[in-house]
Amino acid sequence: MIKTDILIIGAGPTGLFAVFEAGLLKLKCHILDALPQPGGQLSELYPKKPIYDIPGFPDILAGDLVDNLMEQIKQFEPGFTLGERAETIDKQEDGTFIVTSNKGKKFHAPVVAIAGGLGSFEPRKPLIEDIEFYEDKGIKYFIKNPEKYRNKRVVISGGGDSALDWSIFLSNVASEVTLIHRRNEFRGALDSVEKVQELKNSGKIKMITPGEVVGLNGAEHLESVDVDIEGAHRNIPTDYFIPLFGLTPKLGPIGDWGLEIEKNAIKVNNSLDYQTNIPGIFAIGDVNTYPGKLKLILCGFHEATLMCQAAYQIINPGKKYVMKYTTVSGVDGFDGTRKEAPKAVVKAIT
Amino acid sequence: MIKTDILIIGAGPTGLFAVFEAGLLKLKCHILDALPQPGGQLSELYPKKPIYDIPGFPDILAGDLVDNLMEQIKQFEPGFTLGERAETIDKQEDGTFIVTSNKGKKFHAPVVAIAGGLGSFEPRKPLIEDIEFYEDKGIKYFIKNPEKYRNKRVVISGGGDSALDWSIFLSNVASEVTLIHRRNEFRGALDSVEKVQELKNSGKIKMITPGEVVGLNGAEHLESVDVDIEGAHRNIPTDYFIPLFGLTPKLGPIGDWGLEIEKNAIKVNNSLDYQTNIPGIFAIGDVNTYPGKLKLILCGFHEATLMCQAAYQIINPGKKYVMKYTTVSGVDGFDGTRKEAPKAVVKAIT
Ligand SMILES: Cc1cc2nc3c(=O)[nH]c(=O)nc-3n(C[C@H](O)[C@H](O)[C@H](O)COP(=O)(O)OP(=O)(O)OC[C@H]3O[C@@H](n4cnc5c(N)ncnc54)[C@H](O)[C@@H]3O)c2cc1C
Ligand SMILES: Cc1cc2nc3c(=O)[nH]c(=O)nc-3n(C[C@H](O)[C@H](O)[C@H](O)COP(=O)(O)OP(=O)(O)OC[C@H]3O[C@@H](n4cnc5c(N)ncnc54)[C@H](O)[C@@H]3O)c2cc1C
Repeated sequence: MIKTDILIIGAGPTGLFAVFEAGLLKLKCHILDALPQPGGQLSELYPKKPIYDIPGFPDILAGDLVDNLMEQIKQFEPGFTLGERAETIDKQEDGTFIVTSNKGKKFHAPVVAIAGGLGSFEPRKPLIEDIEFYEDKGIKYFIKNPEKYRNKRVVISGGGDSALDWSIFLSNVASEVTLIHRRNEFRGALDSVEKVQELKNSGKIKMITPGEVVGLNGAEHLESVDVDIEGAHRNIPTDYFIPLFGLTPKLGPIGDWGLEIEKNAIKVNNSLDYQTNIPGIFAIGDVNTYPGKLKLILCGFHEATLMCQAAYQIINPGKKYVMKYTTVSGVDGFDGTRKEAPKAVVKAIT
Repeated sequence: MIKTDILIIGAGPTGLFAVFEAGLLKLKCHILDALPQPGGQLSELYPKKPIYDIPGFPDILAGDLVDNLMEQIKQFEPGFTLGERAETIDKQEDGTFIVTSNKGKKFHAPVVAIAGGLGSFEPRKPLIEDIEFYEDKGIKYFIKNPEKYRNKRVVISGGGDSALDWSIFLSNVASEVTLIHRRNEFRGALDSVEKVQELKNSGKIKMITPGEVVGLNGAEHLESVDVDIEGAHRNIPTDYFIPLFGLTPKLGPIGDWGLEIEKNAIKVNNSLDYQTNIPGIFAIGDVNTYPGKLKLILCGFHEATLMCQAAYQIINPGKKYVMKYTTVSGVDGFDGTRKEAPKAVVKAIT
C-alpha cells in the first residue's frame, strides 16, 4: 500500500503542477497514470507541437513544457505509478480514501485529486480474433520500455506519427521492424515520413502497404501475424505486434465513483476550491466542469493551486497557513535542496 | 479620446496577459498604468529576483517574465499609456465607459478590466517644504526617460536598489551625480553596492553620507538643494533632485468608483467571470478578492482568461464563441503575422 498526502490521478500538466503547489505546503504527492509516461495529452497527442498560450512562453513545445514541469517538481520527490488505471475508491471510516488500480495496487491518502483530463487513455484496438489472448504475450499498445524490443522482431501497424516515430526509433533497437499500413499514404510530420522512406530504402525498415494484420498465431506467445495484402495472405513471423491506431480517452471507472457528472466531466465547486460532491475528492484540469469552464492548461494550473490550499486544511485541520511568496521565502525541497533568491546585503560605502 | 475594446488598467503580469487572451478573441486592448514601465510589481519591486512558482519555469527572473509577456502579446499590438493614473470613470448611456486619467486623457471602451494589483504605485515623498511646487520643475520620483538627464547635474537620494542602480546608470549620462543617504550603509544587491563604491573611488559618483536633503531652492525651476550633514548645512547646485524612497501602492481613485470593496480589494464574482458589481467592469489579479483568493501571478493569468470570454459576450452579444486551441488553430496577430504549428503532411512512402 502506498501512503501519501495527496493521491493525484493523472500525470498531465495539471497533476504535475499540483505536486509543486502541494510541496510548497509541505504536502507529499503520489501520481497514478494509465499512460507509461507523464504529460497527459501533451506527451501522448502532441509532444512536438508548439503551444502559444502558456503565459510567459511566446511558444513552447508541448514535450518541453512537460520536461520543464518535471524539473520544477523534482525537488518535491513525487511518487509515480505509471501504466496503471485508477479503478475503485473506498472511503475509510476516518474519512481517508483507498484507491485501487486495475493491477490491484492500493493507494491510501486523506485527499484525492482527480486530474484525469479527458479520461484515461485507452488504445484503439484493431478487431482481430483472439487479440485479448495475446495482450502481454506479444501484443503491446504502448511502448513503455523500448529496450524490451532489443534484438527482437517487431511488427508495427498504423499510419500516423506514433507508427512512424516508433518505427524509426525501433529500427535501431529491434532486429527487424516491419511497418504495415492500410494505405501507401502516411499522415505525420514531414521529417518523420521522409526518415521512414530513407530507412525503407536502406532496408532498415520493411514496409507492407497497403496491408492489414488480420490474424495472430502462436501457442503460448505470439509467433507470427497474418497480413492481408490486397486479398492475398502472407504470414510474417514476429516476436511483437504493436498496433498504434491512436488512443481514446475514457472517463472510465471514475464515472462510477458517485461523483456528480455533467457533459462527461466532474462537477466541482469553482467558487471555492474545486472540490467535488464528495468531500476530500477534488477534480482539477480538463476533467472538471463548472460554469464558464475552459479546457486550457493555464486554467488547470490555477485550479491545482487553489485545490492544494483546501487539501492543506483537510490534512492540517484548524492550522492556519500563511501564504509566502517563493521569491521572498525560497523553496525547500523534500530532497534537502533549497532554492532562494540572492539576498540583499547591507554594506557601507566608504 | 482613445477607443478600444477592453481598457485594461494596470500593466502588471495580469493586465499584460489579458491582451493575449483578448487577442485570441479578436478583441483589441489599451493599457493604462501609473508607472513609467510595464510589469507592475515585478518590474518595480523585484525585477532581478527569481520567481519559482510560474508553471513551466523552474525559475525565472521577474524582469524576464515581463519581457516574455511583452513578446507574447506583441502580435496583438496593445496600446500603452504609461505614467498616468486612471482617475474617474463614467458610464455612458449605451453602457460603455469613459475613463479619464490624472492628466486628462480619455479612454472609451465597452469593457474595463481593472488589473490594478495592490493599487497604483505612488512615490514615498520626503517631507521637504515646497516639494510639490518643484514637481515637474526639477523633482522627479521616477526616471522615465534617462536621456532627459544627459549632461545635467543630478542629486539622487535613497539607500536601496533604486538609488544605487540609477546612480550607476546615470553616472554615464549625467554631467554630475551626487548620491545622498542618511546612513553609510546601503541595502541592495552586492553587485550594485560594490559598483557604486568603485564609481565613488574613481570620482564618477559623489557621495554624501550620512546626509539628508532638507531644502529646495530656485525661482522657476530647481537650482540647488540644501543638505544637512550631521547638523551642518551645505548647498549643492543641481538641475534635478530624484528622491528614491520607494513606492507605496494605493488603490486610490478606483476606490471611489462605486465598486464593492473588501480588504482594500475589489469583490468579484469568482464563480463565473471575475466581473464586479458594475456590469462591464471586471477586476483581475491582485486587485480582486473572493473566497479563497491567492495573490499569485498564475491566478491572475487564469482570471484574465475567463474574463476575456465574458468581455467577448458583452462586445459581441449573442455571438457564440467556440474556443480553439492555439496549437491547432495557430495565432493570428493584428499585425498580420501568424504563428502556427508545422502542419502534418499526408505523403506516400514508395
Ligand atoms: C491537439 C491538441 C492541442 C491542444 N492545444 C492546446 C493549447 O494550445 N493550449 C492549451 O491550453 N491547451 C491545449 N490543449 C488542451 C490541453 O492539452 C489540455 O487542457 C491539458 O492536457 C489538460 O491537462 P490535464 O492535466 O487536466 O489532463 P490530461 O493532459 O488529459 O492528462 C490526464 C491524464 O490522466 C490520466 N488518467 C485519466 N483517468 C485515469 C485513471 N482512471 N487512472 C489513471 N490515469 C488516468 C490520463 O491517462 C492522462 O494522462 C490541446 C489539446 C489537444 C488534444
Ligand atoms: C517581493 C515580492 C515577491 C513576490 N513573489 C511572488 C512569487 O514568487 N510568485 C507569485 O506568484 N507572486 C509573487 N509576488 C506577487 C506578484 O508580484 C503579484 O501577484 C503580481 O504582481 C500581481 O500582478 P497584477 O498584474 O495583478 O498586479 P501588479 O503587478 O501589482 O500591477 C498592477 C499595476 O496596476 C497599476 N495601477 C493600479 N491602479 C492604477 C490606476 N488607478 N491607474 C493606473 N495604473 C494603476 C500599478 O501601477 C501597477 O503597475 C511577489 C510580490 C512581491 C512584492
